[in-house]
Amino acid sequence: MVRWEPGAPERLRAAALELFAAIGYEQATVAQIAQHAGVTERTFYRYFPDKREVLFAGSADLQRRMVDAVAAAPATADPARLVAVALEALAGMFTPDGREFARRRQALIDAEPALRERELLKLATLTDALAVALGDHGVEPVKAAVAAQAATGVFQVGFDHWIADGEARELADLQREALTALRAVVMWV
Amino acid sequence: MVRWEPGAPERLRAAALELFAAIGYEQATVAQIAQHAGVTERTFYRYFPDKREVLFAGSADLQRRMVDAVAAAPATADPARLVAVALEALAGMFTPDGREFARRRQALIDAEPALRERELLKLATLTDALAVALGDHGVEPVKAAVAAQAATGVFQVGFDHWIADGEARELADLQREALTALRAVVMWV
Repeated sequence: MVRWEPGAPERLRAAALELFAAIGYEQATVAQIAQHAGVTERTFYRYFPDKREVLFAGSADLQRRMVDAVAAAPATADPARLVAVALEALAGMFTPDGREFARRRQALIDAEPALRERELLKLATLTDALAVALGDHGVEPVKAAVAAQAATGVFQVGFDHWIADGEARELADLQREALTALRAVVMWV
Repeated sequence: MVRWEPGAPERLRAAALELFAAIGYEQATVAQIAQHAGVTERTFYRYFPDKREVLFAGSADLQRRMVDAVAAAPATADPARLVAVALEALAGMFTPDGREFARRRQALIDAEPALRERELLKLATLTDALAVALGDHGVEPVKAAVAAQAATGVFQVGFDHWIADGEARELADLQREALTALRAVVMWV
């Protein structure tokens, strides 16, 4: 019987999460993470440029799928529809079986300013990429910029709830709730 | 005749901006910044914990004024009105005479990932503080979270335009334009 073996990046990610939680982010070294994952330090650096990046392995993929989804939307789609498409693509990346990992990962990020800063940089990069994708789809610049901010803002609020203790609803539903709240707020400003 | 002399924090900020632009952020030392400002290194550390913070001296004040403005709003103000109050408070801090400084400061931040990460952390802190202020004003959690994201998103888009080359409109007007665009986008999602 052939069992599926997670690849080196997945094992490094899991090893890093365990080590950071056990001995602290500052204390854990790349050498220890590699050893814990059963690979060499050299292998670590083949996948990640530094210790922080190991927790953000999925962000490039997340961004690519969101951008691809917007690019694949019909030419007739208006900015509102494109925001919905982007949000659906983001939500589709967070399946129920990943929620516990996401919770433990976020606890580490929230406790470590260096990780929090890197997370914010990834979110800003995601926002910028969405603004560009919207612009490429014909959305005018100011609308593209605010639509991208709104989409990643809604994603963040939805995601915060998705990983909250005891929360069982899916990310797509939580994003819809956030979007409804946003609409109510800005309609009358 | 008594001339107004800028205080040590203002001189350190100006000195840091000049030095970073002249020799690069990485190369400039706290000792050099202090010397350039005509103060001791000890004085630098009385005002700023590290080299990055010198460019973010105004962020605590910005946050306090925004939070105070929301707290001072009438109890009857709805979330939309509170967002408008927060945006007005932010815009009021960026007067025309500060625009050239803001442009030069942003050029440095955009060129240096360490500064960009710190800027994003300040913006996230501002967003969190606004969500708390809205909650204290009786706004329910999800609405408070998305309203805070929307407000700082609109501020960011407005600010990006405010410091763009050749832009002459005031920040309050650019924020209004961004808010109008946001409304158009989310109304029909």
